Parts: sequence; structure tokens; C-alpha cells
Amino acid sequence: MDVIEQANRAAVDRMFAADPVLVDVIPAVEAIGFLAEGHKILHAGPPVDWSRMCGPMRGAVAGIAVFEGWAGDLEEAAAMAADGAFEFHPNHHFGTVGPMTGLTTRSQPVMVVANRAFGNLSYCTINEGLGKVMRFGGNDEEVLARLRWLRDVAGPLLAEALRSGEGIALKGLIARGLGMGDEMHQRNIACSSLLVRELAPALARTSTDRERLGELLQFMSGNDQFFLNVGMATGKAIMDPVRDIEASSIVTAMSRNGTDFGITVSGTGDRWFTAPVEMPEGLYFPGFTEADSNPDMGDSTIVETMGLGGFAMGASPAVAGFVGAGAASEAANFTRNMTEITYDSNPEWTIPAMDYLGVPSGIDIRRVVETGIVPTINTGIAHKEPGIGQIGAGVVTAPMACFTQAVHALAEQLGVS
Amino acid sequence: MDVIEQANRAAVDRMFAADPVLVDVIPAVEAIGFLAEGHKILHAGPPVDWSRMCGPMRGAVAGIAVFEGWAGDLEEAAAMAADGAFEFHPNHHFGTVGPMTGLTTRSQPVMVVANRAFGNLSYCTINEGLGKVMRFGGNDEEVLARLRWLRDVAGPLLAEALRSGEGIALKGLIARGLGMGDEMHQRNIACSSLLVRELAPALARTSTDRERLGELLQFMSGNDQFFLNVGMATGKAIMDPVRDIEASSIVTAMSRNGTDFGITVSGTGDRWFTAPVEMPEGLYFPGFTEADSNPDMGDSTIVETMGLGGFAMGASPAVAGFVGAGAASEAANFTRNMTEITYDSNPEWTIPAMDYLGVPSGIDIRRVVETGIVPTINTGIAHKEPGIGQIGAGVVTAPMACFTQAVHALAEQLGVS
Repeated sequence: MDVIEQANRAAVDRMFAADPVLVDVIPAVEAIGFLAEGHKILHAGPPVDWSRMCGPMRGAVAGIAVFEGWAGDLEEAAAMAADGAFEFHPNHHFGTVGPMTGLTTRSQPVMVVANRAFGNLSYCTINEGLGKVMRFGGNDEEVLARLRWLRDVAGPLLAEALRSGEGIALKGLIARGLGMGDEMHQRNIACSSLLVRELAPALARTSTDRERLGELLQFMSGNDQFFLNVGMATGKAIMDPVRDIEASSIVTAMSRNGTDFGITVSGTGDRWFTAPVEMPEGLYFPGFTEADSNPDMGDSTIVETMGLGGFAMGASPAVAGFVGAGAASEAANFTRNMTEITYDSNPEWTIPAMDYLGVPSGIDIRRVVETGIVPTINTGIAHKEPGIGQIGAGVVTAPMACFTQAVHALAEQLGVS
Repeated sequence: MDVIEQANRAAVDRMFAADPVLVDVIPAVEAIGFLAEGHKILHAGPPVDWSRMCGPMRGAVAGIAVFEGWAGDLEEAAAMAADGAFEFHPNHHFGTVGPMTGLTTRSQPVMVVANRAFGNLSYCTINEGLGKVMRFGGNDEEVLARLRWLRDVAGPLLAEALRSGEGIALKGLIARGLGMGDEMHQRNIACSSLLVRELAPALARTSTDRERLGELLQFMSGNDQFFLNVGMATGKAIMDPVRDIEASSIVTAMSRNGTDFGITVSGTGDRWFTAPVEMPEGLYFPGFTEADSNPDMGDSTIVETMGLGGFAMGASPAVAGFVGAGAASEAANFTRNMTEITYDSNPEWTIPAMDYLGVPSGIDIRRVVETGIVPTINTGIAHKEPGIGQIGAGVVTAPMACFTQAVHALAEQLGVS
């Protein structure tokens, strides 16, 4: 086995050995001390500054600045942003991830996933639900009120319930979800339901306010994508220990900020390989068309990075139709295709309908370049203007340029270029 | 269209027009006034007396007599039963159904499903969970203690939550479950989770005792088959309005008491057509073999009667393996096979992986006899001795003799024999 193969075996073994557990919900500033000082905003994707940010990301930035009390209104916030009043950093640099615009700031509650096999922690905000939400660029009073409720009601109640027990083991829960039609990116109804089922007894025992408990259970129960953010934190928790394995050509993160698509690779550490992000192809909600859509966005591609989402389409025939990828019975083809560019099949995350084939895991940048097959990503589509929100869902591919750059860099590092 | 086809169209239209809603939980005696006087025991399947009852059914009878306070212990209860102290009737004669032994007596809480399209009500006891349970013939103190808890804690809490709202609409919930790998007989994890998710907010708002609420949510959350009994009551609620359509050859119930298999047919009213019940073929829990198994038992075949269970195997590839029916990828064959003996495909209950084919609905006794294809039933397997419980799961077929008898009776009634 050559040095790269050996390194990749080690990388994928770390993925499969991971033991992600949802253990807590805490204010982001407690998770990430770096957020305490100044006006710091973590965002999805590789680094991007205000001048290059897309519309929905700008909308979200303005909204979160008002939410944090840094600006009196959205106009002031946007002016401050243009003046350089806010400091922007990628979530990925601080152990955290966020869907779509993916903003993380100090007051927001974040869910904490511990990878008990390796001791690392990862974070993600709580999913806001559908409709007008900040992750799709929404920023009006309805959006901010929900963020306050998440901070003041949902976060503390969930924290108390989680702290009363051993945490919620996520590996088995995701395995069950794969047998129930979830691919954990565009479809999370099974895992969301299983999570409510796991949390409800502890919530009942620890909550002293029946009304607030009812509100929280109603919110969680009414949100089929509640689990998305848990799954994303799981992805981050699983992939971070895979970083920095010398010579490994396995992808450790794929992410987009609405302007650029970026990947990181185990053997090249934290260096981003970026290219202009592509437009999703999909289905639009009534009244919207491709002309309204923003380019692909979000850290949620960490889901594909760990072998789910578009890679697990075969588990989720209903998603194939929802994202406009073809007939439900053809969903398995997407998964089969991804086996061409991955190192192994996950022995614990299997797809019953494909006779328990494990999800394709460990994206090898060499195979991507050799085969010309780029990762398939299931994604939501945001309106390109700030303040509007989700307008559809679709499939997008990772740009080949990220992978060719990464192959060159790794080759150079190994002295074989 | 001949008279039988016309009648069958009407029958299946009633199935599809049904609107089953879970509305309440009440003591069985409030649902079925007939239970108030004397020592009356309703059981699964067509009529059967003590002398012909199988082992697990006898075990359950002894247990329920102790539970109801009619006997001091199991020995006394069995002696009383042999002496004719208890009156036995089929659940199906009183709008109710029960899984496996399926006993219904006056003190047990029953869930109430209202078919809002036709105004009829149906009932089923609350699922006891796995392990040692009365439906598989269990009757020791652990089993009776759980029945008391269901009566004193679970029933009243569920009742209060259900009464505080509009009820839980079941048609859409089952449709979602079909897209999540449930076939609603041997696999109910999706619908069980969705039901917890729907009930939890109301339970939180109406329960004043946090400990008991925690207990109930823990019980529901730990029982992947919790929904089975709800699904069965749904089947009864859907199929009862299909009874007594002149000339219709559609099956309105299939049921087994562990000794006989019986069917009823729309055009022949409440008359049972029975034959000796068959042995399930399946997989056994460690330590048990076919030699230990009781013949097929329970009213749960109402699930297949409405087009789910074995008829919806294509939705549930994981079940194909669990019941030993073959490879997961072959699950769809079972569903395709059942289209040969059914009148139509359900337009609202569809199977994503089969490109949204509707589940095969309306078993036509003529087609069964013509094709030689008998209904496929997914089932649990009980130990043949009283007091032991479940030892496996498998597939069983309905005996052809029931269908040939029914065809002759219908022909005679129509003057064409």
C-alpha cells in the first residue's frame, strides 16, 4: 500500500471510529471564547469579506447585528458592515458549522456534539424552522423574535434536559434515520422525530414551566429539518479528527459562502482550495424561478463530506423528486456514482433498500480528478436578495477546480509534482 | 361494469374516503357497554371457546381474569375458564381489535379512532411494548403490573392530551410512515415516532405530574411498535363502513385466534369463513425454533386488509429481512404480487421507492381463488405454551379455504352457484 493509500485508510478509520454524542446547548460565547470581545461574526464557507458577500449573507449579517444589539436597525447595521465595524471569520475555523448563511455570534445558543472517541467538540446553532429564517437571509422582526426565543427559551430547556442524562448518541440514531428515508441534508424528518422521542422524557422531567415546554415541543415537532443542524455538528465532530494526516488525500470539509466553494483536505491541513460556487439545479416554490436564486451556500456540505446527503440519496427516494434529481427509483444511482470517488463504505451507516450497502465515505481528491466525477450535494436554494428566504431545493455539484488545486498542492507537498 | 365490479368499486371508494382520527382513550367498558355485566372477554379472531383455545390465548385469559379481579391467581382463573365462568366473544363483533391474543376486558383502556367520513368508532388497547406481554400469552406479575400502569397512568394522561385538541389525523401520518420504511405491521418505528412528536406538546400542556409524564414519554419512546395498535384501530375504522355492500367480493376483515383463521366479506356481512390457521415461516429469537411456535394469531391482519403490512412490504425493505422473507431489494415483489388480488391502488398511501405506487387495496376473494395467490401477512410469532411470549417474526399466508368458502357463499347469495 503506498503512502497515500495508507494515510487514507487511517483517515477513513477515524471517520468510522467516531462516536458523536449530543451533550449540551450553551451560548456560543461559552463554546468559542474568541467571540467575547468585539463584533465578531462567524459565517458559512471559506473566508469572505463584506464586499464580496452575496445578498442573503449580507441580509443575515444586518439582522444578526441588530439581534446582538450592535446596530439599532438593519440600515445602520449594513452601513456599519460596509465601514468595517464587524470582523468576519469562517465557522470552520472555530469548531462550528452553520447552514446556508450560517452565522454564529456570541449570544446565540449552540448545540454541542462531543466526539467521544477522539475528545473533540463541535457546535451548531439550533435550526430555525422553515419560512422566513436568518439562514436564508431573512432579517425582519419575526426572524429576530424567533432568535430571541431560541436564546431565552429553547436553548436553556434543551440544555437542562441534555445535562440530566448521558447525552443523545448520534451514530445509531443516524443509522436508523437512513433506514427511514432520511439522507440528513434535505430530508431529516425521521431523525428529527427520533430526536424528539429521545429528548421528550428528559424534557418532561426537567422543565418546570408547562407552557414553555409545550412551546418547545411544538416547535421541534413542527420542524422536519430540526435535525439538520445536529447532523451538521455531527459531521464537524466526525471530520475534525481526520484533519492533518500527512499525505492523506481525503476531503475533511466542503463548504460554501454563497460566493466561493471551498474544500479542505487532510494532508494539506486547514488550507482552503476555493473556486466560484455553482448554481443549484432544482425545483422552485411557486412564484420563483432560477433567475431569483442565489448561488449555493452553507456549511451543510459537511453532511456530504461524511457520506450522507447526496451521497446517501439511495436511502431517500423521496428526496430525489424533491430536489428535482429524477425518479425516486433512480435515487440509488446517485449513491452508486459516489462510490467511484470515495475510499470505503461505512459499515454502520447502511441503506436497507440497497441491500445494506454502506454510504460512500472518504472523498478522495485524486479519484475526483481522475474520474471527472464531482461530489453531488443536496441543497436548499435561497433568494439572491437579502431578507426573502428559501425559494426552492435542488442538487449542486462541487466545482472541479477545488479538487485539481488540492491535488496539485498535495503533490507539491509530497514532492511528486 | 357488472354488479360485483360496481359493488367493489363502491367498497374500495369507501376505504379511500375514510378519515380516521385518534380522538380519545377510555375504559373499554365505556366504549363497549356490553362488557359491564358478567365476566366477558373479547379475543382476537373468529369465535373460539376455551376447549379449542391455543396455549398463549389460554395464558392471556388466565392473566386477564386475575387483572380484572375475577380470580385470585392463574390456576384458579384457568379452572374457572374450564368451568365456563367466562363468556368469550370476538373483538370484531364490538368494533374493536387486538394484536395476537388481543384480549379486551372492561377495565383496560382503549384508544378510540373515529372515522370522520362515516361517523363510526373503533377501539384497540394500548400496545404493551416488547418482551413479556399479555398479547403473546404472558401473564406474570410484571405483565399485570404493566396493565395496571396502562390503566391508571398512561390511559388517563393520553386521554387528557387528546381531548385538549382536535385529535391526531391518521391518514396523513400513515402516508408519511410509508415514506419512512414502515409497513405498519412488523415495523412501526416511523409512525410511533411521528405520533410521539404529535402528542408530546399536548401532553406537556395537560399533564400536571412531571414524573408520570416522563414515565409515559419514556414508555412510548421506548416502544417501536407503539403505533401498531393505533394502526389496527385505524384498519377497523376504515373497514367497518365497507361491510354489507350487496354483491361486493371485497374482504372486510382477516383475523386469527391461534386456532382458526377467519375472513369476512362485504357482500356476505358478518359471516365468518374459517379454516385451520397456518404456521408462520420466519426467523426465531436465539434459543427458539419452529417447534416452539404457536400457529398464527391476532386481529392485526386488519392491517393487511386495508392494504398495509405484507401488502406494503415494498415500503419497508428492512422488514423483508426481519421476517425472513428474502433480500431487502426484493421487498417490492411482495407488493407487486398483492396487486394481483386487489381491486385498486390507494391514491394517498404510496411507496416512494416504487415511484409512488399506491398500496394494493381491496382484497377481492374472486381474484384470490382465480390466481391461487393468497394474502401475504407479516406477523409476530408467539411461543405455543402459555406465559412465555414472543419468540420470532415471520410471514404467513391466509388459508385458501377461507376464500373458496366465501366465493361459494357469495355466489349462492347472488343465485349464481
